[in-house]
Amino acid sequence: MMKRVFVSGLEKFIGEKVKVKGWIHKINKFGQVCFIHLRDKTGILQLVTDDEDIINEMKLEMSIEVTGELIENAKAPTGIEVKIETFKILGKTYYDLLPFSINQREVKASLEKQLDFPFMTLRRPKKRAIFEVQGIICNAFRDFFNQKGFAEIHTPKILASGTEGGSELFTVNYFDQRAFLAQSPQFYKQMMVGAGFEAVYEVGHAYRAELHNTWRHLNEYVSLDVEMGFINDEYDLMALEEDFLKFLFDQLNKKAVDALNLLSIDLKPLVEIPRIKLTEAQELILKAYNKKSPYGGLDGEGEKLICDYVKEKYDSDFVFITKYPKSKRPMYTMPDDSLDEMTKSFDLLYKGLEITTGGQRIHDYHELIENMKTFDIDPKDFDFYLEAFKYGMPPHGGFAIGLERMTMQVLDLENIREACLLPRDMNRLMP
Amino acid sequence: MMKRVFVSGLEKFIGEKVKVKGWIHKINKFGQVCFIHLRDKTGILQLVTDDEDIINEMKLEMSIEVTGELIENAKAPTGIEVKIETFKILGKTYYDLLPFSINQREVKASLEKQLDFPFMTLRRPKKRAIFEVQGIICNAFRDFFNQKGFAEIHTPKILASGTEGGSELFTVNYFDQRAFLAQSPQFYKQMMVGAGFEAVYEVGHAYRAELHNTWRHLNEYVSLDVEMGFINDEYDLMALEEDFLKFLFDQLNKKAVDALNLLSIDLKPLVEIPRIKLTEAQELILKAYNKKSPYGGLDGEGEKLICDYVKEKYDSDFVFITKYPKSKRPMYTMPDDSLDEMTKSFDLLYKGLEITTGGQRIHDYHELIENMKTFDIDPKDFDFYLEAFKYGMPPHGGFAIGLERMTMQVLDLENIREACLLPRDMNRLMP
Repeated sequence: MMKRVFVSGLEKFIGEKVKVKGWIHKINKFGQVCFIHLRDKTGILQLVTDDEDIINEMKLEMSIEVTGELIENAKAPTGIEVKIETFKILGKTYYDLLPFSINQREVKASLEKQLDFPFMTLRRPKKRAIFEVQGIICNAFRDFFNQKGFAEIHTPKILASGTEGGSELFTVNYFDQRAFLAQSPQFYKQMMVGAGFEAVYEVGHAYRAELHNTWRHLNEYVSLDVEMGFINDEYDLMALEEDFLKFLFDQLNKKAVDALNLLSIDLKPLVEIPRIKLTEAQELILKAYNKKSPYGGLDGEGEKLICDYVKEKYDSDFVFITKYPKSKRPMYTMPDDSLDEMTKSFDLLYKGLEITTGGQRIHDYHELIENMKTFDIDPKDFDFYLEAFKYGMPPHGGFAIGLERMTMQVLDLENIREACLLPRDMNRLMP
Repeated sequence: MMKRVFVSGLEKFIGEKVKVKGWIHKINKFGQVCFIHLRDKTGILQLVTDDEDIINEMKLEMSIEVTGELIENAKAPTGIEVKIETFKILGKTYYDLLPFSINQREVKASLEKQLDFPFMTLRRPKKRAIFEVQGIICNAFRDFFNQKGFAEIHTPKILASGTEGGSELFTVNYFDQRAFLAQSPQFYKQMMVGAGFEAVYEVGHAYRAELHNTWRHLNEYVSLDVEMGFINDEYDLMALEEDFLKFLFDQLNKKAVDALNLLSIDLKPLVEIPRIKLTEAQELILKAYNKKSPYGGLDGEGEKLICDYVKEKYDSDFVFITKYPKSKRPMYTMPDDSLDEMTKSFDLLYKGLEITTGGQRIHDYHELIENMKTFDIDPKDFDFYLEAFKYGMPPHGGFAIGLERMTMQVLDLENIREACLLPRDMNRLMP
């Protein structure tokens, strides 16, 4: 039996008979002759036939198998074409009109409509290229941390209690109990550091029941989580993340060449990432842009402006904002005793958007209990978490990168839903 | 500042001053002198001191930092030891008695108690070795399918409707809607094949609200999912899985040498996996062991016996059982027209336990609707799924491997909970 050849691998078979499979992307009739674009996951190939039976059977997006001679043709889009000898329908179509046309320069359907028909939208090579880049991000993340001796962990997403407060939790009916979907693997990744793994990572879903639909939020997203023990302070973590990002950009420029070209993205190698204290960042944008910030943070506009400032001054798309005040960070955040009411915490902003939150954690059992109390949290509610701190928990900290946000920012997408195969938001549970 | 050296990397520093960090695994006093075992993620090292202040401060499982000269000592467990010069407590302890002792040859606590204290249990190198092997399984899975050109996908775990019927579904309160936790990425991995990715894999959680607690079930587990388009039949899938397993065993024997030694596991390279039709398997165990099977399947005892039979006859720990009857497989399973009421499906058994279910799927829209009807399923309930079949869905199929089951069987563990960091079952939502 003849072996299928992928479109991207055809060149070495010129002059030979080949078998190709894929979907009918375009049909152009010129008199008796019909030129067909066959699309597989690797590219698009011109087919040609004058067989009326075949021409009459064809419909856009049908999946087919074709054999025929592969010849050079300077007029074909890729310089080669296959003259159809045998034609077989593999997957029939059952539609009167396609939901929208996907073989034109642009898709005219709204984003909402595109999300209603992912199996149509993603047939466009440009849309799949987004997820090729996303795949390379995931692989680079795991490769980097594997190589650094981190252990991969899989932690439960069904919890008896939430990690950071109750308002943004989805509830699950777990047999006779009420349970919650994990907002993050925070408690468990810390626990695993203390359990002797020392340094761990996880690629897993996180759930946020946020009551607003925005261009930058998903209610279910993939979190790239890192946690590391025996650190000196949060600067170890920032250095680690910066090393990862350098590796990532290097990998993208090596492995995602075609996808980045298709998406017209020019990724420059990473420069050293500036680190700016939050209070300084607030002052900088007040002076430079007359922009006031809320206490203890930057709002969306502030994040954009400080990134503009950093881009101009340091030619960096990234900036670490450090030393957030205690009241604005979770109860497990390590206080910074050198600064009044501040913590050993950081955010990483990328092209105007926060893609990482991180910091050192409190590792002393009593200090953690005392800190919970200042947050009006009853330590009893977190017994299962506190228990892990009784047995020599080392100094540790970590960070998390939102996979879809990272993908969106690398590719300059406008809406985070474009960086998610099947997004979930307040209004969308389908398909 | 002196750099920390991991225990496994100490040998090249003999005669030099080193810094080590870790937990106090054992304390042995002989008169004035105290020998301490320091445990880090890479191994155990003997420390020695006669400093009374240091000796008095020490407690089991405290985390510490030590500097001192590294010397050879034939009497030390690994032939080397560090004479403590400086000693620093990094993580204090707050207990009267450890929940159980972890520095003896065996842990005396019950499995339930061990699961109550994962941050204690996992400090034993033998326990962490299980998850080192699990990590290698995950990496091998992704490496193999990346290399074969499969795309990694992340599909939603919150669904508007279940994939295989309602009885085993956890419900989620999703804003004002009732939703479900995914039993598998089945519908979505098929959709993504049809969306042009052609071949996809996912490493993600799956949820089963099964109302029984057994040694081989978890209510939340990690599923290694594969789906592939443009296949000829289910034998393509079995060949693919067999190739993966050969690669996996090869990787384990290369990368998990220490972990497998520690766990006394001798992994032989994979031989060709026998393929036996279900009806034949049933007859074989009836003849050989006088064991009757239920209609359309093998029960737990039957799975063990057919594996015994195959081990004896073919020296294989694996066996594919093929051609399950239609009524015993999901509604999307491709019928096998050459056999009455049978399907193009298979299970993979490994040392007496099912670790994979797979098969070819129905790809024709009308055939799928008709098949739903024979299962008394209303096609309207699956509109969002059926829609993907209107646009040239190619022939396709796939399979899924349970990560914890695979880990358990590779390592001859007795309970699947030992192959899960933080298991969830009917009675366990904590820690």
